[in-house]
Amino acid sequence: MNLLLLEAADFTAKDTAIIRGRRLRQLNEVIRAEAGKVCKAGVLGGDRGRGEIVEITSNYAVVRFIPERPPLEPGKITLVCALPRPKSFTKVLHAAVETGVKELNFIQTFKVDKSYWSAPRLAPEAVREELLLALEQSGDTILPQVHFFPRFKIFVEDVLPQIASGTTALFGDPAGVPAAITPGKITLAVGPEGGFTDYEKRKLGEAGFAPISLGERTLRTEFAVAALLAKLG
Amino acid sequence: MNLLLLEAADFTAKDTAIIRGRRLRQLNEVIRAEAGKVCKAGVLGGDRGRGEIVEITSNYAVVRFIPERPPLEPGKITLVCALPRPKSFTKVLHAAVETGVKELNFIQTFKVDKSYWSAPRLAPEAVREELLLALEQSGDTILPQVHFFPRFKIFVEDVLPQIASGTTALFGDPAGVPAAITPGKITLAVGPEGGFTDYEKRKLGEAGFAPISLGERTLRTEFAVAALLAKLG
Repeated sequence: MNLLLLEAADFTAKDTAIIRGRRLRQLNEVIRAEAGKVCKAGVLGGDRGRGEIVEITSNYAVVRFIPERPPLEPGKITLVCALPRPKSFTKVLHAAVETGVKELNFIQTFKVDKSYWSAPRLAPEAVREELLLALEQSGDTILPQVHFFPRFKIFVEDVLPQIASGTTALFGDPAGVPAAITPGKITLAVGPEGGFTDYEKRKLGEAGFAPISLGERTLRTEFAVAALLAKLG
Repeated sequence: MNLLLLEAADFTAKDTAIIRGRRLRQLNEVIRAEAGKVCKAGVLGGDRGRGEIVEITSNYAVVRFIPERPPLEPGKITLVCALPRPKSFTKVLHAAVETGVKELNFIQTFKVDKSYWSAPRLAPEAVREELLLALEQSGDTILPQVHFFPRFKIFVEDVLPQIASGTTALFGDPAGVPAAITPGKITLAVGPEGGFTDYEKRKLGEAGFAPISLGERTLRTEFAVAALLAKLG
């Protein structure tokens, strides 16, 4: 936790929040919290600044928030990603959100096992918890949007053109040109472990997407996402 | 497993190997292996090519290896990394090895918890197993070297200058210039979660290292490594 993230519901007065649970435990671990100590803090959806511990017990902490800086600039890349296996899903979420991605779209493709769609990690409250952890890691305060599209054809024909409108649209493919810095907003599509099928590549092409590559090595999805975001950004 | 990695000890004749254990299980899962099936294969320390299943039982598989291509070009970056907590250690190993890093040096720094050094994951056989998994993931055949240096001062004064000799030497630091493509060989030093101390930065500077940054966001170590390797490569 590099940032204590406060939510609207935590505030009992304009600048005073009460926290419990996970954040309280982390506060105790990370800064051996006691009254008077100060840590980096931020308000979800708002400013970054400092949090001063006013009072702390084993059940709650009272934190005074002192705003100092506006939120971090959002990243310029929107991610479209074939839904990974559940364990990878969480990692991809972190790789993208910690890098500043504010819109993540997970989609069905031919090589995505249908069982992945029923994973408990995809439940809204589980996703939100991971998003908060990723924001706390990266020092960010703006909650990303996460969308799920379990039907490829509908997504690629009806939804993707709107998402990609006004952006440079790229998809990861071993046969593509080397990924390189790309100015302006970007929509990046990343395939499943076995890659996009020829049909899927054709549909992406029709939607205006061009293939880019990371080279001959095949990285785990979360590292491919982290590397592509870094190469393009 | 994107590549069936065969070792010298597996070969019973010039082109014939017998495998058991994990790789046999994965063979059954990945390609529903039966006699006649073919998968991507490689020889540890040698060529890449195809593996043809000659015979398969629940106890062993006989694979005929057909060499086709030389090993992948090694990456140009040598990694120096503050020893991460055990779970992150494995992830950093994968991020680096899948990207083509062939020399990894894990070091003690002030903010590395000393308990990390006794983690079972650091045992040579555990490290080797993860290296093999990372090679199989990335389609590589050349085993990287992994070294551990539990004393910072000795490392930075006596060992690091030799490692960095003839390379562009860089270390990750929030106050550095933005990481960008850097030609030629590189030595990249990555700090612990809390960063390098001022003393450590001064010692790195004396060893010829310049600070580079990924921006305002603080990434988990494995994603910072993946992103920095991508930015520089």
